[in-house]
Amino acid sequence: MHHGDSTEPVRSKFAPGEYAARVDVDVPHRLITTQDALDPTNPVLRQVIDDAGRDDPARCLICIDSGLLDAQPDLPDRIAAYANHHADVMLPVGSTMVVPGGETCKQDPDAYQRIVRAIHDHAICRHSFVIVLGGGAVLDAVGFAAAISHRGVRLVRFPTTTLAQDDSGVGVKNGINAFGKKNFIGSFTVPWAVINDSSFLGTLDDRDWRAGFSEAVKVALLKDAELFEAIEGSATRIRRRDVMTASAIIAASAELHLEHIVTFGDPFELTEARPLDFGHWAAHKLEQMTDFTLRHGEAVSIGLAIDVTYAALLDMLPWTDRDRIVTTLENLGLPIRHHAMHDQQTLFEGLKEFREHLGGQLTIPLLTGIGKPIDVHSIDLHVMQRAIDMLADGESRVPSTTVE
Amino acid sequence: MHHGDSTEPVRSKFAPGEYAARVDVDVPHRLITTQDALDPTNPVLRQVIDDAGRDDPARCLICIDSGLLDAQPDLPDRIAAYANHHADVMLPVGSTMVVPGGETCKQDPDAYQRIVRAIHDHAICRHSFVIVLGGGAVLDAVGFAAAISHRGVRLVRFPTTTLAQDDSGVGVKNGINAFGKKNFIGSFTVPWAVINDSSFLGTLDDRDWRAGFSEAVKVALLKDAELFEAIEGSATRIRRRDVMTASAIIAASAELHLEHIVTFGDPFELTEARPLDFGHWAAHKLEQMTDFTLRHGEAVSIGLAIDVTYAALLDMLPWTDRDRIVTTLENLGLPIRHHAMHDQQTLFEGLKEFREHLGGQLTIPLLTGIGKPIDVHSIDLHVMQRAIDMLADGESRVPSTTVE
Repeated sequence: MHHGDSTEPVRSKFAPGEYAARVDVDVPHRLITTQDALDPTNPVLRQVIDDAGRDDPARCLICIDSGLLDAQPDLPDRIAAYANHHADVMLPVGSTMVVPGGETCKQDPDAYQRIVRAIHDHAICRHSFVIVLGGGAVLDAVGFAAAISHRGVRLVRFPTTTLAQDDSGVGVKNGINAFGKKNFIGSFTVPWAVINDSSFLGTLDDRDWRAGFSEAVKVALLKDAELFEAIEGSATRIRRRDVMTASAIIAASAELHLEHIVTFGDPFELTEARPLDFGHWAAHKLEQMTDFTLRHGEAVSIGLAIDVTYAALLDMLPWTDRDRIVTTLENLGLPIRHHAMHDQQTLFEGLKEFREHLGGQLTIPLLTGIGKPIDVHSIDLHVMQRAIDMLADGESRVPSTTVE
Repeated sequence: MHHGDSTEPVRSKFAPGEYAARVDVDVPHRLITTQDALDPTNPVLRQVIDDAGRDDPARCLICIDSGLLDAQPDLPDRIAAYANHHADVMLPVGSTMVVPGGETCKQDPDAYQRIVRAIHDHAICRHSFVIVLGGGAVLDAVGFAAAISHRGVRLVRFPTTTLAQDDSGVGVKNGINAFGKKNFIGSFTVPWAVINDSSFLGTLDDRDWRAGFSEAVKVALLKDAELFEAIEGSATRIRRRDVMTASAIIAASAELHLEHIVTFGDPFELTEARPLDFGHWAAHKLEQMTDFTLRHGEAVSIGLAIDVTYAALLDMLPWTDRDRIVTTLENLGLPIRHHAMHDQQTLFEGLKEFREHLGGQLTIPLLTGIGKPIDVHSIDLHVMQRAIDMLADGESRVPSTTVE
């Protein structure tokens, strides 16, 4: 670079309207499906940490969902035993952090701030690890703490619910709630690794077990008609907790979610569309309207039922497809209605909030068939009202000929 | 994707030790140098916002550094007039947010939280803009608020100090302080645009004016011997506030910083080395030790003086180069010592904190010559002590032969 006479101004080479440069960030994402990950002979966690190529054992801060700890009180001991067996690569620091399970930890900023403080107190650095085991909410809150500490420390996630394993735990998002809005505060940050261990799923109660499969239905409807058929054909077995069948669906769903993030070309959602948010405008609002007594997965089931009924009422989606989808949700033991739906005025605010959160114009994914999504940019509220009434009233089917 | 018999488990295709996938994020970074950006006939800001390709005017939340507002009380009116002239592309919302200037806004979390709340209250979405005008600390705090709201809203930065224009304002970092540590909390987030408007520099007091040039010296020492010579040759003119000379140096420094971010291959610092942090281990600690009465740019000047003296004492850097560097800093009116240096025990904690913040092994950039950096991974504290004593005592030069 020549600077010539030092009294001459050096002109910027960048003119307005041009990009000065592009910043390219390319980060590995590790998704591993395994069983009994904390059995000392299981190499997965060891290898994931060793992948950092450190000479010395990596400091690890362990965070556990309080609900999981209630179900498995010996979990801290098992983690300690695993770490002890692999002391050449990992060094747990401090005592295990217990994080209030469920949406509580995203509602109260104290939960993530405690983790930030522990990261500080135990000298977790950008080359150390935060290891978190729990449901999606705990992964989100701890993930946010890890993402903003030192501008990002490494995060290993053990999603322990069906929902977190087949959807949220796989992704690149974290967040907490604020101003009564889900995930108002958060970041896009790629986790170091996600370890899906099917042996954790046994700890779930029936309601949490079932709640995970609406996201599998969702991603199948958007991307993979064969996967939808597999879920449709095994819905009753899944509801009855056939782990082998369920694990297959979870693994397929997790991989579709990751594939979407990686190949859709916009992992940090800098442009408009987010087709994976199918059914989510109503789901997010219903969770908030019910003070989170409705689980996310349950709310997504209702949201899907609403949006496929809406598409059928518009003659966009065949009624036979709509009915197969709604029946599959019901066979999975998932709700397709909730009394909160009667307050349609509040529910419809969800459309506005959905647009604001994503920014730009409203974009709602709908279906023209199973595996065939399209984006629409406006909603006919009268038709949407009819769809919601139909589900709320338990009307199982309206032949399309009755639609004016 | 074929799922076969739905009772068969679908095996994950990812084995431990392999990467499941790579997440690639590619974001434009716009750096524009201009003058009188708020003159309604200056197209830069308009074009930067219009670059989003929106049909409707973009909502813009305006944030101003309190120090800048004191110096230019008509600034909100000038911004309003600009926006009014370009009402087809931009729509300011709410009243101007005034952010306490200097490190205050990074010390008190209330400052960034007020911005998050304003983003919420004024319905700033991912496709809206936060426009911030001010010094580096205000850019950092507002940038953090923008980065975590809705997982990231668009940020246009107007750095208004020499330091922010030639260094921090250009980069991809934001942050606030916590637990007595600079930038303990923050993120790597690429700003939508950075507009360096030289007309703001007139508002600075002499101390702030000068404080910006230590980062220009730093980047020149690491990357561009010719730029160092240009600074060396014009240091006295810069100190006397020759704007044309200074602007040339600032533009060259800003572009070197951006070039580093873009071409160094690790913009989010996921690996070890960060050669742009030359002189910064001591600088960060000195700022903290002086309760931020020492400006960042002043602390960097002292940090550079310490590290080049250390390298000279090690016979790594020729004394002639060391003396040229120290003399240039002095000719720029920058400090090379501070009484806080006498507390060496506390200062040396800065090495540990620097390592912890970056993670992994200690990596300190040093020079073997002007424009010739190398990384070292350990520091000889006895030699470092001598370097600090030499500067603290005002000893101008020790011939290398006296070093045992």
